[in-house]
Formats: sequence, C-alpha cells, structure tokens
Amino acid sequence: MEISEIIKKYFEEKIWTEEPKNLYEPIDYAMQSGGKRLRPSLVLMAAKLFGGDVGKYVEAAAAMEVFHNFTLLHDDVMDNADVRRGRPTVHRKWDDNTAILSGDAMLIKAYQMIVGNVDDKRLRSVLDLFSKTALEVCEGQQYDGDFEKMKDVSLDEYFKMIRLKTGVLLAASLKMGALLAGASEEEQRDIYDFGMNVGIAFQIWDDYLDCYGDEKTFGKKIGGDILCGKKTFLLVQAMINGKASQQQTIRQLINNNNILPEEKISAIINIYTQLDMPLMCEKAMDEYFEKAMASLSRIKKSEEEKAPFVEFAKKLMGRKN
Amino acid sequence: MEISEIIKKYFEEKIWTEEPKNLYEPIDYAMQSGGKRLRPSLVLMAAKLFGGDVGKYVEAAAAMEVFHNFTLLHDDVMDNADVRRGRPTVHRKWDDNTAILSGDAMLIKAYQMIVGNVDDKRLRSVLDLFSKTALEVCEGQQYDGDFEKMKDVSLDEYFKMIRLKTGVLLAASLKMGALLAGASEEEQRDIYDFGMNVGIAFQIWDDYLDCYGDEKTFGKKIGGDILCGKKTFLLVQAMINGKASQQQTIRQLINNNNILPEEKISAIINIYTQLDMPLMCEKAMDEYFEKAMASLSRIKKSEEEKAPFVEFAKKLMGRKN
Repeated sequence: MEISEIIKKYFEEKIWTEEPKNLYEPIDYAMQSGGKRLRPSLVLMAAKLFGGDVGKYVEAAAAMEVFHNFTLLHDDVMDNADVRRGRPTVHRKWDDNTAILSGDAMLIKAYQMIVGNVDDKRLRSVLDLFSKTALEVCEGQQYDGDFEKMKDVSLDEYFKMIRLKTGVLLAASLKMGALLAGASEEEQRDIYDFGMNVGIAFQIWDDYLDCYGDEKTFGKKIGGDILCGKKTFLLVQAMINGKASQQQTIRQLINNNNILPEEKISAIINIYTQLDMPLMCEKAMDEYFEKAMASLSRIKKSEEEKAPFVEFAKKLMGRKN
Repeated sequence: MEISEIIKKYFEEKIWTEEPKNLYEPIDYAMQSGGKRLRPSLVLMAAKLFGGDVGKYVEAAAAMEVFHNFTLLHDDVMDNADVRRGRPTVHRKWDDNTAILSGDAMLIKAYQMIVGNVDDKRLRSVLDLFSKTALEVCEGQQYDGDFEKMKDVSLDEYFKMIRLKTGVLLAASLKMGALLAGASEEEQRDIYDFGMNVGIAFQIWDDYLDCYGDEKTFGKKIGGDILCGKKTFLLVQAMINGKASQQQTIRQLINNNNILPEEKISAIINIYTQLDMPLMCEKAMDEYFEKAMASLSRIKKSEEEKAPFVEFAKKLMGRKN
C-alpha cells in the first residue's frame, strides 16, 4: 500500500470518542476533518528511505498529526479563527473552553501514541525530539503573537518565527522517521534540513495564499492574516521595499477599524500587487526549494528513492514543475 | 535534608525563563507562586517508603508539580478566575492567549523532565502512568464544566468527577514514587488507593473552604464555586437533603443575575448552614480519611515509616488530630 493510503486508512478507522463526550467528540471532529496528513506521511517516507519497516511506525507517525491538530485547536482560539479546512473551527462549533481542554487531551494522546509504539531502544531519543520540537512550535506561536503587536518586524525575525512555527514540525517528522529506521546522525540532519527548508517555502506559500488563494481550496477565509495584523512575508517585505507613502498607507489601513474588513483586505492586497509581491514570494520559495534540494542531494540514496521527496516539496508549494 | 526542603530548594533554584519571554515568564510566575508542592512531595515520600534513592527522583517528582500548575493555568482561563494563591492568575496578569500557550509549554516541559530523568528500565511505565493520569485529569475538568451546566448532579457523578479532577493526580504521584523505587504491584495499588481517598477528602475540604474558609489562607475568593454554578459536595448534598423550599430557593438564587454576587453567596451559604453542611462535610471527610488509613495499613512497613503519610492526610484536610 502507498504511504498516503496507509495514513488515510489509519485515520478513517481510528475512533477517538470515549467518555466524557464533550472532551472526545471535538477530537474526533478535528481528526476527521481531513487535511493533507503531511506530517505522518513524512515520518513514513523517511522511515522507508532509510530502510525501516513502515508498517511498524504508523501509530508513532500518526502522533505527529494529532500533535499538529492540537496546535490548530489552540491557535484557532488564540487567533479567533472561524473556519478551518472549510468547516467551523472547534471553538466556534463548541466554545473556547472545549477547544482548550480537548486540545490538551490531544497533546497527551500524541505522547501516548509514541510511548505505546516505539521500541525501548529508540523511545528516549524519539521523545526528546518530539518534546524539543513541540516546545519550539509553542515558541513560534508566541513570536507570531508577539509580532502581531509590534510595529515592525525584520526579515530575520520573520524567518526565526516561521522556522519555529512551521519548519520544525515538518523537519522533525522526517527526522523521526529517519531515527526510527536507524539512520545515521548525518542522515538525520540532512533530512531535517530538507524538511526545514521545504517548511519555510511552504509558509511563504501559505502567506501568499492568504492574499491570492482560492477560498475553497485554501480552506480559510482570504485576508485573515491581514485582519489580525499578522507579520506575513508579504507584509514584512512591503514594509522594507515599499515607498514611504505605500508603507504609510499600509500602516493606516491596518490600524483603521472604521472601514469594512473586505475593503481593508482589498486595499492592502492592491499595494502588495503594485509591489510585485507574488513574484517576490515565488523567488523566495524558489530559493528555499533549492536549499531543500541541496540538503536532499547530500543523502546517499538513489534518485529513484529520493523522488517522492522532490515531488512532495513541489506539491507543497504549488509548483507545477 | 527533609523531603519538603529538597522540593522547596529545587523550585527556588530552578530558572524557567528562556526566549521568547512572553512564553516563559508566565511559567516562572506560576512556578514561583508557591503552593504546597504536595504532588512532588508525595512522589518522594513514596519513593522513600519503598526504599528508593530520593535524590535521584527530584526532577521527575517536580514534573508532577509542573503538570499540576499547567492544569491551573488552563482551568483559570476556563473558570475565568481572578486570583490564585493570593495573586492575579496568569490570564489576568497577561491574557488568555498567554495562559493557554504557556500552559501548553508547561505540559511539554513536564514530559521532558520525566524523560530526562527516569532510567530506561522504568521510563515506559512511568510515562504510561503519567499520560493516563493526565488524560483523566482532563476528563475530570470536562465533567466539572459539564456539571456546571446541568440542573442536578447525583452523588455518584460528583464522586466520579472529583476522583478524576483531584484524586488521580495525588494517587498517581504516590504510585510514581513507588514505581521508581521498584515497589510491587500490590504496594503500588495500595499507595494509589491511599492517595485517591485522601484526594477525595481533600476536594470535599476544598469545597467546604469555598464557603467557610478564610480568604487569606485559602488564596482564592470565597464563593467562587457558587458564582460559577460548580457542583460542589455542599450543593449536591443540599439538593438531595434540603427541603423542597430550600432546594427551590437555591435554584432561584443560582439563576438570579439581578442580585449582587455577595448577596447570592451569603444567601446560599446561609441555607448550607441551616442544613448542617459543615458537619456533613466533616463526616464525609472522616469516611474517606478512614478508607485512606485502611489502604495504608495494607502496606507492610513500620508505623514509623508510614507516619508521614498519616500526618500528610491529616494536614491536607485541616484535621487537628
């Protein structure tokens, strides 16, 4: 069976609902909402690349998806987001308290799934990787929130934030697979770097889609980042490269609560377009795509074995070739 | 050094603050706010009772306190509580998002502290105990929230809730110490049962203090449980044992948002006093104290070795003898 099929089947068959219902039903709702299941697929892809027995690691791989969905439940409370994957967020469908507590339970479940399925030999190193990564994701989310309240954010700060918020979990998923399959430290580092660079490109793509995406396939409302003042790649670059008048207009728009949200969004996107932001996003994504390819090339496996990783990287950032 | 001294010193010397400050400073604030440090003391007391090397387990013991404080951060958001241990709660001093995210980081830290300090031989069983307990605490908190919205709660339901919300963590702390020290399964079960029964008595005492305590030593505002409609031992018993007219008055008071909070609190406490609730609480605590003593007596250790557990149980429920 293909890795994506294995993962799909796992989540289709898995039942999360126990008592009390109000704790576990939201977990079921979140876990059944689909999504690309990127992180568990990455665990198994890396395990396969380094000769591991993919079938043995499905539950540990799935833990990464449960963890990821835990962060989404809490992030959606913090960002006051209405829609996730085209459906109401947990805190909208239930309430904030439910999203907080069910999220907590998911984080614990993720640990349980790892502890219950990783051999003694690797348990401690897998848990060390998982906890370190989980803390980094919290740190990234904190920077993201801090930056919303800051007037200006440098490119360095932006990249530090998205490394933590998005990069580390994709990177760690790959490293976990490598670790489970007994890859060398060098191999673990190279596959981690590959994931990190793909993750950075992916976050720039996600920032781009918030302005230029199609609401249906994006699964979120267009302009959400603009409304909550998120420091996206587009905003950070516009405040560096825009003319003083454009920067001033953006600042005024962001702080103006007397215009309709749709007007705010379209006015800011207009400036982004004037500044060729779509092209600038593409260039930055290309740069990180190339870095990812360089990391991948250091791994001594056949091109055929590495092909799924190239394909994955392209797919993730909407590349056609 | 005494166990309480070891624990005190550990938390005095421990520094939680890293970057980003807005994530870690609230953790520092929460962990420095004192409290009785019951749970880590219980881990070390049990480890000592069963012949373990107390010094080796301090960090794993401290993890139980970090976990407990994580639950307080999130509970205080959910209950919208203003004061904890005589100081503003984290979500009041900072905001809800901070309390959510710093709480998440504390849960991960607790796992890290266990993984970093428990031998390979016991790691999996300690983690299994910890995760199982952590999930149960979430379940207890969910029942607590669910019950607030229910008209009536039976005594059975009340006890199920407080077992999960309060009992399991005290019980599991003792069991963790026993496990670390290599106690038999029977001994682990007996010390767990002791902790569970003490925990139940303690929760009844906490429910009592919400009405009859001294705000200064209690560290929380009197009547907080009444205002948020918590199903405490006193409320559940009053709705079982009160006259129809008293039950009706309580129900009307709870649902009446047109009277001052202080008036609501004192009117309900008045009915509790008419119903001899202080005596009923005392009787129930005595019952669970005796159950705890029976569990303790099954453990084949000298009375001298077991004396700290008797003392602990008495202290926890405000007993003079």
